[in-house]
Amino acid sequence: MKKRTLLMIPGPIEFEPAVLSAMGEPTTSHVAPGFIDAFGQALEQLHRVFGSPSGQPLVLAGSGTLAMDCAGANLVEPGDKALVINTGYFSERFAAILERYGAQVTLVNAPPGDRPGLEQIKSALESDSYKLMTITHVDTSTGVLVDVQQVAALGKQYGVLVIVDGVCSVAGEELPMDAWGVDLALTASQKAIGVPPGLALLMIGPHAMQKFHDRTTPVLNYYADWTNWLPIMQAYEARKPGYFGTPPVNLIVALNVSLGQILAEGMARRIARHITISRACKAGMTALGLGQVPLKPEFAAHTLTAPRYPQGVNGADFLAGVLKAGVTLAGGLHPAIRPEYFRIGHMGAANLSDILVTISAIETALAGCGYKFSPNVGTDAARTVGKSSN
Amino acid sequence: MKKRTLLMIPGPIEFEPAVLSAMGEPTTSHVAPGFIDAFGQALEQLHRVFGSPSGQPLVLAGSGTLAMDCAGANLVEPGDKALVINTGYFSERFAAILERYGAQVTLVNAPPGDRPGLEQIKSALESDSYKLMTITHVDTSTGVLVDVQQVAALGKQYGVLVIVDGVCSVAGEELPMDAWGVDLALTASQKAIGVPPGLALLMIGPHAMQKFHDRTTPVLNYYADWTNWLPIMQAYEARKPGYFGTPPVNLIVALNVSLGQILAEGMARRIARHITISRACKAGMTALGLGQVPLKPEFAAHTLTAPRYPQGVNGADFLAGVLKAGVTLAGGLHPAIRPEYFRIGHMGAANLSDILVTISAIETALAGCGYKFSPNVGTDAARTVGKSSN
Repeated sequence: MKKRTLLMIPGPIEFEPAVLSAMGEPTTSHVAPGFIDAFGQALEQLHRVFGSPSGQPLVLAGSGTLAMDCAGANLVEPGDKALVINTGYFSERFAAILERYGAQVTLVNAPPGDRPGLEQIKSALESDSYKLMTITHVDTSTGVLVDVQQVAALGKQYGVLVIVDGVCSVAGEELPMDAWGVDLALTASQKAIGVPPGLALLMIGPHAMQKFHDRTTPVLNYYADWTNWLPIMQAYEARKPGYFGTPPVNLIVALNVSLGQILAEGMARRIARHITISRACKAGMTALGLGQVPLKPEFAAHTLTAPRYPQGVNGADFLAGVLKAGVTLAGGLHPAIRPEYFRIGHMGAANLSDILVTISAIETALAGCGYKFSPNVGTDAARTVGKSSN
Repeated sequence: MKKRTLLMIPGPIEFEPAVLSAMGEPTTSHVAPGFIDAFGQALEQLHRVFGSPSGQPLVLAGSGTLAMDCAGANLVEPGDKALVINTGYFSERFAAILERYGAQVTLVNAPPGDRPGLEQIKSALESDSYKLMTITHVDTSTGVLVDVQQVAALGKQYGVLVIVDGVCSVAGEELPMDAWGVDLALTASQKAIGVPPGLALLMIGPHAMQKFHDRTTPVLNYYADWTNWLPIMQAYEARKPGYFGTPPVNLIVALNVSLGQILAEGMARRIARHITISRACKAGMTALGLGQVPLKPEFAAHTLTAPRYPQGVNGADFLAGVLKAGVTLAGGLHPAIRPEYFRIGHMGAANLSDILVTISAIETALAGCGYKFSPNVGTDAARTVGKSSN
């Protein structure tokens, strides 16, 4: 028996027992009627989770980076101009992907923890004629949240395709694609979608699909080429078999289970729960005297918290102490500030109890590092905020 | 409770209970010590399964097609000349992938069920100067087996990189990479490797790696770019954490379990078992009066059998009858002869009992289709051949 710890990193997260059980079910043929039905249901449910009745869902074996690559490879033609709203490590990765397929990329930058302002984005949009714009809804490296609704509206105003990297947001942050004018959103299974890592998920809106069909040059990437996969997705959604590559059967069955749970909770209630436990977690950190990477509360994601270490606390010692207390957290990821902060993921099935257990472990580790604070001040603050929001 | 059938298609296959159990274990962090150890062990075990102490293993979330794409994207530079030994649907897919990355591809063709002869391949190698050659060890669409040892030796003689698509062969057919001079071999998890679909596996030999390092143009595919993944694979094999994209934790833990089982059986014994049950299956088909797609016995794979329907038997009715009798088989896949044949997968954990159950279901279905044969003639022949080989 392995020693289990509570997994509170920004993905993979703790998964629901029913989802894990689906992962371990005997695999069926990828064209068995039961699997066709599960895959078809999963695709239908994705429309609702992404808030996109008008979109085309796409489910591929791969990581979140494949989902980004898939968007870039299919929408960029050599020479296209692209604007990247840069809020950290993953925004820069999107820029690298777009460049790989021949885009001329302009970055709208902000220091780590900050985010580009609307005026700054507007002036970038004024300055040139862009085919597309990418927004990292939540940058997993810093916990910075972008106001997608406002930035997407600006993008629409200037006629650019709006692409949202929702790896750390879809099913955890509000993102009604069609209502907000988002042309493509993508995510990975192991975040708020609640399924073990291995699936790249995209929802392609009608404008993005039109741009794809309007291409005059071939897609430079074979595996990610939508030409190969669109007929397959359309077949399964129509409850017919299709074959291009063998779908990851167990992961897709597990996805269907998780999407069913997500929709049973309801998107509005689910987003509200994420906000509540995020507030509780952040209140706990503040009460303990820890700052956070996002410079303002309204810049902070609800799917993770990125607290800064207090002075005198060594990151490696702290994380080891938290682990010893039974909780797995993640270290920093943004190269510019990596040793200065840690990350707590709280998405998917996470609840207030998980937050309290986590903060308690953080308190134990901080005390072990010689940091002084009033006993239980973090857990008390989190409990108060978490309960009052319910 | 779902109605379970015996899954005897050429992937996904029936998986061992311990492998499925690993799939459903609670997911840990991708940098947790336990996972680092499992991933490191899996990479080490891959060297032994591929017969390649000198190679660099690569494990990615993706399908077998991604493994092919990954080889093509990293080894082809625009204008490179490539020779494709064409034995069916998947050889042609490899040609399409190589062309996508700018290769000038020459196909060495053979009719469905046949395979290009050594003289034919030699004369193709004489006719131009190729950077690389691809061989589909077993074409899953036709069940045709290529003599990799001989073809690879020819390739070496002409100084070309020898790339083997081992999707339907690795861990089921003999393929000692280093000994046979294979420069890169690739496979997918759901075949003889014995793990649910979702992993692309490559073993990159030193010559292929050198050609990759000698590139003067960027890799045209971001996700598949070895530059991103090599440091990660090297880190995990050295039991250190690494991060580029989140690895598919559950699938990799399951892979490590399956590779352990494979090596516990021993490669020689495992290959011999595949030959035995393949002979038993093919003897059963012959006794029933069914021909096979591979034109000669020595052209036939040991991981699947591709019998032709006898005259008067309708494929859809037959496959429905087999399913009703409790076994899932696959229809034809090669476009030129699709309705004329079906496919029986027998790799990984498959044993003689599975073959007998399968042939019995085939007999029931054939009888249901009005086909005449001596009762049990197929199962009897399979049992005789299967037992005498043990």
